Amino acid sequence: MFAHNKRLQYTVRVNEPNPGLANLMLEQFGGPQGELAAACRYFTQALAEDDPGRKDMLFDIATEELSHLEVIGNIVVMLNKGAKGRMAEGVDSEGDLYRSITGAGNDSHLTQVLYGGGAPLVNSAGVPFTAAYVDTIGEPTADLRSNIAAEARAKIVYERLINLTDDPGVKEALGFLMTREIAHQKSFEKALYAIEPNFPPGKNQGDPRFASVYFNMSRGEGEMRGAWNQGEDWEFVTDRDQQAAVDGGDGDASVRLSAQEMELLKTAAARTASDPAADPMTGAELGLAGAAKRSKPH
Amino acid sequence: MFAHNKRLQYTVRVNEPNPGLANLMLEQFGGPQGELAAACRYFTQALAEDDPGRKDMLFDIATEELSHLEVIGNIVVMLNKGAKGRMAEGVDSEGDLYRSITGAGNDSHLTQVLYGGGAPLVNSAGVPFTAAYVDTIGEPTADLRSNIAAEARAKIVYERLINLTDDPGVKEALGFLMTREIAHQKSFEKALYAIEPNFPPGKNQGDPRFASVYFNMSRGEGEMRGAWNQGEDWEFVTDRDQQAAVDGGDGDASVRLSAQEMELLKTAAARTASDPAADPMTGAELGLAGAAKRSKPH
Amino acid sequence: MFAHNKRLQYTVRVNEPNPGLANLMLEQFGGPQGELAAACRYFTQALAEDDPGRKDMLFDIATEELSHLEVIGNIVVMLNKGAKGRMAEGVDSEGDLYRSITGAGNDSHLTQVLYGGGAPLVNSAGVPFTAAYVDTIGEPTADLRSNIAAEARAKIVYERLINLTDDPGVKEALGFLMTREIAHQKSFEKALYAIEPNFPPGKNQGDPRFASVYFNMSRGEGEMRGAWNQGEDWEFVTDRDQQAAVDGGDGDASVRLSAQEMELLKTAAARTASDPAADPMTGAELGLAGAAKRSKPH
Amino acid sequence: MFAHNKRLQYTVRVNEPNPGLANLMLEQFGGPQGELAAACRYFTQALAEDDPGRKDMLFDIATEELSHLEVIGNIVVMLNKGAKGRMAEGVDSEGDLYRSITGAGNDSHLTQVLYGGGAPLVNSAGVPFTAAYVDTIGEPTADLRSNIAAEARAKIVYERLINLTDDPGVKEALGFLMTREIAHQKSFEKALYAIEPNFPPGKNQGDPRFASVYFNMSRGEGEMRGAWNQGEDWEFVTDRDQQAAVDGGDGDASVRLSAQEMELLKTAAARTASDPAADPMTGAELGLAGAAKRSKPH
Amino acid sequence: MFAHNKRLQYTVRVNEPNPGLANLMLEQFGGPQGELAAACRYFTQALAEDDPGRKDMLFDIATEELSHLEVIGNIVVMLNKGAKGRMAEGVDSEGDLYRSITGAGNDSHLTQVLYGGGAPLVNSAGVPFTAAYVDTIGEPTADLRSNIAAEARAKIVYERLINLTDDPGVKEALGFLMTREIAHQKSFEKALYAIEPNFPPGKNQGDPRFASVYFNMSRGEGEMRGAWNQGEDWEFVTDRDQQAAVDGGDGDASVRLSAQEMELLKTAAARTASDPAADPMTGAELGLAGAAKRSKPH
Amino acid sequence: MFAHNKRLQYTVRVNEPNPGLANLMLEQFGGPQGELAAACRYFTQALAEDDPGRKDMLFDIATEELSHLEVIGNIVVMLNKGAKGRMAEGVDSEGDLYRSITGAGNDSHLTQVLYGGGAPLVNSAGVPFTAAYVDTIGEPTADLRSNIAAEARAKIVYERLINLTDDPGVKEALGFLMTREIAHQKSFEKALYAIEPNFPPGKNQGDPRFASVYFNMSRGEGEMRGAWNQGEDWEFVTDRDQQAAVDGGDGDASVRLSAQEMELLKTAAARTASDPAADPMTGAELGLAGAAKRSKPH
Repeated sequence: MFAHNKRLQYTVRVNEPNPGLANLMLEQFGGPQGELAAACRYFTQALAEDDPGRKDMLFDIATEELSHLEVIGNIVVMLNKGAKGRMAEGVDSEGDLYRSITGAGNDSHLTQVLYGGGAPLVNSAGVPFTAAYVDTIGEPTADLRSNIAAEARAKIVYERLINLTDDPGVKEALGFLMTREIAHQKSFEKALYAIEPNFPPGKNQGDPRFASVYFNMSRGEGEMRGAWNQGEDWEFVTDRDQQAAVDGGDGDASVRLSAQEMELLKTAAARTASDPAADPMTGAELGLAGAAKRSKPH
Repeated sequence: MFAHNKRLQYTVRVNEPNPGLANLMLEQFGGPQGELAAACRYFTQALAEDDPGRKDMLFDIATEELSHLEVIGNIVVMLNKGAKGRMAEGVDSEGDLYRSITGAGNDSHLTQVLYGGGAPLVNSAGVPFTAAYVDTIGEPTADLRSNIAAEARAKIVYERLINLTDDPGVKEALGFLMTREIAHQKSFEKALYAIEPNFPPGKNQGDPRFASVYFNMSRGEGEMRGAWNQGEDWEFVTDRDQQAAVDGGDGDASVRLSAQEMELLKTAAARTASDPAADPMTGAELGLAGAAKRSKPH
Repeated sequence: MFAHNKRLQYTVRVNEPNPGLANLMLEQFGGPQGELAAACRYFTQALAEDDPGRKDMLFDIATEELSHLEVIGNIVVMLNKGAKGRMAEGVDSEGDLYRSITGAGNDSHLTQVLYGGGAPLVNSAGVPFTAAYVDTIGEPTADLRSNIAAEARAKIVYERLINLTDDPGVKEALGFLMTREIAHQKSFEKALYAIEPNFPPGKNQGDPRFASVYFNMSRGEGEMRGAWNQGEDWEFVTDRDQQAAVDGGDGDASVRLSAQEMELLKTAAARTASDPAADPMTGAELGLAGAAKRSKPH
Repeated sequence: MFAHNKRLQYTVRVNEPNPGLANLMLEQFGGPQGELAAACRYFTQALAEDDPGRKDMLFDIATEELSHLEVIGNIVVMLNKGAKGRMAEGVDSEGDLYRSITGAGNDSHLTQVLYGGGAPLVNSAGVPFTAAYVDTIGEPTADLRSNIAAEARAKIVYERLINLTDDPGVKEALGFLMTREIAHQKSFEKALYAIEPNFPPGKNQGDPRFASVYFNMSRGEGEMRGAWNQGEDWEFVTDRDQQAAVDGGDGDASVRLSAQEMELLKTAAARTASDPAADPMTGAELGLAGAAKRSKPH
Repeated sequence: MFAHNKRLQYTVRVNEPNPGLANLMLEQFGGPQGELAAACRYFTQALAEDDPGRKDMLFDIATEELSHLEVIGNIVVMLNKGAKGRMAEGVDSEGDLYRSITGAGNDSHLTQVLYGGGAPLVNSAGVPFTAAYVDTIGEPTADLRSNIAAEARAKIVYERLINLTDDPGVKEALGFLMTREIAHQKSFEKALYAIEPNFPPGKNQGDPRFASVYFNMSRGEGEMRGAWNQGEDWEFVTDRDQQAAVDGGDGDASVRLSAQEMELLKTAAARTASDPAADPMTGAELGLAGAAKRSKPH
Repeated sequence: MFAHNKRLQYTVRVNEPNPGLANLMLEQFGGPQGELAAACRYFTQALAEDDPGRKDMLFDIATEELSHLEVIGNIVVMLNKGAKGRMAEGVDSEGDLYRSITGAGNDSHLTQVLYGGGAPLVNSAGVPFTAAYVDTIGEPTADLRSNIAAEARAKIVYERLINLTDDPGVKEALGFLMTREIAHQKSFEKALYAIEPNFPPGKNQGDPRFASVYFNMSRGEGEMRGAWNQGEDWEFVTDRDQQAAVDGGDGDASVRLSAQEMELLKTAAARTASDPAADPMTGAELGLAGAAKRSKPH
């Protein structure tokens, strides 16, 4: 069960309204690397998790992310406060209101016209939050790696947002949120390595014939080697012929069909057969300038 | 520039058509953990990457993922081959065709009715591929972690698909694809750790006051400690009061508004003020059974 | 700030696993009328609300909806428990696992193959949750009506789910959740009518010429009158001519353009002008059977 | 069957082109509160409705909303007229065309570059219309409430748009459209209350133990009481312990599993068990600056 | 302005309810090739069209597509009629209702549980209609080709649906709808070729160096020639070297940067430089079984 | 199998960074008419195609589109190069960075804040690529028409982009890409007409009663005739009565129900029956100003 305490996890002191900046902050409210995505990710993992330690940790962090969602949401709302009143009362001369909306830049017009100066669950381009951002798949050695990566991404977006404002109160609150992503990443790292072994993820080992091969698929000036494809662990395959049909087969796809199925496919193929000998006149040719003088075929 | 070789990277030998199984395979064709998502992830990173080694590696692996997309796509197409002919020619008695579509189960009806037995870029529930799955953000210490996680997730989904079929040719090709995810994860791991330092990701360090705090936000029977929240690295905060307003402020959100902005907000608030003393009759009460005998107020 | 208590708001006792039923339950987890949609709706309203009474109420109910999300999520997880183990370990013979996945019906295959038997934020067709479901617009006289409607819809979907199962523990927990939607609707009704006046919503009155007109746009057998279009409040307009151009103008659309703009539009129109006198041969005619003997125009 | 009359329902007289304003108007063309959403909502309800009076009303209003879609679409097209010609002919010097596109602000660049100055079915941020906005669920006591709320929201967005322009022809047409939302809301209200009883919606009554309880889930400074949670109708529960496990159970989730299912879950749990005693070295630690001098473990 | 006539364009006589078939029919109601997509396509083109003949035609056909939407919607509603009553009243024993929902197959559970047996604007997999299906771009020589293709696709999906049922009334109504797609394609073909020239679409001619080149990018067994790449019109380029950097340049991408921009990029590159000489220990190696005995680095 | 060559298909020489222009270019990277959509369209068709000539052609062109995706992606990356360094290092004073992001206009803020100055798979409004853009349905006579139309649309968007910039290197590369769309359209036209007959698409002929009828559904000033609805091929139906129920039936929808089904529907109808005689008081009336002095009904 969740409970709510009216004090924020971090005090939000915004210097002055700025709907353009508010719009950028939405990235961490309803965006792909934002706090709702994080809360959803950990909450869904917590529900299905059977390991007691991880389950506890996932609920702890999911709950904190909800609290962060509230902090970033309050930053958005404070930055939009002036716009909200103007939009609700519409008392400016119309030109002024239009200019205030257009002048703030980026997609802040959406926040004002559609959302009335609130904090909508969209990203900074106005794209609604989607659970397609949530990559939980229900296997801890994969999900914990997803969490580590998600925290790293969120840290970066906070870092970018911090660089965009000189409002000290906003910087401070964002700094807190950014730091917590670092702390969460550390927890998820510990939890991943407390599973032993955790690589390869899941239950099955890979096929040893292919687990240490590096296919050099991109060729030309600029090729480089590094630990990711050289060293005793790696077999480096650069010959195009050895990259194709690595099983030693013909590299073709086949299926065994019943006689009736084959018959039907043949019929369909015949009906739509392409005549390689034809050089048919086409619609494009009809459409060329000067192709005129043509007439209907009857 | 890309080039195409008509031999597959791995030969696909399907035993017999099975549109239900084909539908499940779509998960790795157009699904969130599938090969198109992988190719898009690495390709977009490769484009923007300035480090020559990583750029080369990302193009290598993006190109291989496209080749995997072709392998899994061929598996889908072979499993759908029988259905394709039946759908194109429609020669069964209608009841038979309807039963064959409905009987295959899951969402294979979509593949047949809308996509004609081909390999559409949807997941196994028929949800179209979306680039919302692609979590590239343009910072290598985050993106490489995303890649590691993505490979781990893809490995798991292949493992599940392998467990679902006893067609030896399908199992074998899926085994190859699964193994390559392991190999790619290894490459991305090497590339991540070849950046030093890579933690915390990005440029800014966290605020030392909050970087090693663990907030115990979920309480009750079932709490556990582990390396993720105990040890000398961690400050463990379980007191609700110490979890709120951790900056020492009042935990409130505020913004400095101009006099005119305040005035407008006051006007808007007055217009929509809630009267806490009222106990108004409501629409719901009007709608209760027996609330009748009511009449219009004029 | 949010806090989490490990006890659920309502105890969940599931009689036996049933992944097909689990899939239907997702409707109230990640579906349009589900608990995440509700929590997001009230939480975003709470953030932007300036009226202290409504703000408090919205946080209360948003928090309870998160607690309901946890209850329905646990129902899903319990119903999927058997499937989760089978999928994670893959120890059945493959035919068995495939049959167990396919046999459960509906979209439960997705929950198993992609989500490993967890509780994903999708609806019962596997469509990911989207904030497009959240209709908060930041004006209380509209938002409260949206909330009343949302509670009514959620109540109905719970009623349908209750009718679908005979597992007494599931029925009981769903009954609790359904009842809470009724209670929430009552609260939102009170809050709406505690604003006076609240109709028409917003600040502006309508144009009295059009506010009580009913346009009878659909004609033919089956027309009926009722309080929604008859009585002294209504002017009933059934004449097609009086339905069009109700302002008394010509019913056309116009804009004043500069000379240069007009010139450009004329040029574009000339370039793509349709010749009404032509009877051109078309691509379709080229494509007709027997249209043959045609040749390229050079 | 639908028929079309070339006269608009309301004459559209636009003073001068303004692609930035056109973009804002898209909110009511392809946005969530727009006319296509409204038409789709009522049309789908009309189709499935069996009550003759409501069916007639729903077709009347759906048809009028299509006519409104045409009016707002014409406003968009007229405001874009200048941009359309410039884009089609591309005769400005390039800098001019780029500046005209960029200078209009908000997302009008999309309307021009992708849609050629037409009226696309997107909202003002360029997000394509989605039927996820349509909340019809097929139960009139819920759907009519959804309609009431939808009309209220649409009225507000029109009010905002009216406040944004000083073009008298645009204001006038928007004023008509706004007023019609008020009239429609009145019709839907009448239709809702002509069903008796209509509360609670649907067939089942709630569980009397929970239908009048208010859970005070959000605590701290700022709590308020009002008709929504006080009075003889309400039981106000503020004690956290009484908010959890309100059924009197243990607040836990459980399911009865077969022996085989339990065995598999145990195996899976063992494989991914977290060792709470471990303090493993992690990837993050490897990635710290100065963690160097580390070497591979062989 | 639109008007509605209560008679359908084609009488719908359904033999008996069949919610599984109803679900398949949704493909042409809210699916990508369905009637709403068609109506939206032509309606948006009609609005922006300045050529009087095409504008008239587009409104004619858009209006007819809305009438078709009504016909297919009624087919869906009739096929769902039985399910609707069962779901609304929930009087079956629960097992029966669950079985009836699950037994119908495909995604009909969604139509019943979420939409109450109505006609929702989703495709047969339950994916909500999106205006991303609408490919209007505001240039008639492109849009008419899009319309021709859309009619062709819709014709095919109707053909498939006709093959799926033996209900004579359904077959007959679908046959009408399919035939109208053919008629519409003919009209759009005529309208395209009534513009002269219409190829290449738009205003600019292509670069003659590249307009008749065919790049043979896919090589290996199975290559074929045909009118699409052979004949006097075509230059066939099969040499990989001649396929790359066809402008004669170095095939590289470059941009002129300011000194400050270069400096910043160098700094960023240095910070995230990959050390090609390193063979770092990685997280994956830490995670290998038996990698144990490792300890934290302090 | 795919292979990658580090030389681009066309050399990209960008004069100077311009993140606003970069954002517009995204339209052809991740937008609906862009290169990823094209590659996906042809690749999925190639996989399922059984005709050897078309299969070869589709792989050729799909591979070239991937190579175009790389070209346009490099244009985006070069135009964003300056922004990337600024964002990564964040060394400007904050005001400067904010201004540089906001000043570039359109949605370039998204590319910078969320994507770090890379090339994300979104359109110019920031909407993620979706496979809903890919209209492959698995029937060549429809798919080839879709391809022809898609090339026409892409050609137009390139033409618009070319008109927007005066950077000669960008214009030149875009000119190449535009020209290739023309060449591809020519190939697809040839391939379509090499199937004979190809109209009507698919297997079934239309119903001759309806295949040459034109329903004049939109009436009023502005009606025109042309080859699309006049001539000996067309029967022109303008009488509204002849447009409805064209089968000669009653224009109604019906289904045969079992007695039990009818009973349930009657029960449901009775429960939600609308009383046409009532003039109930409504929530809206309660909400009117001055409706006060009302009290609760007990």
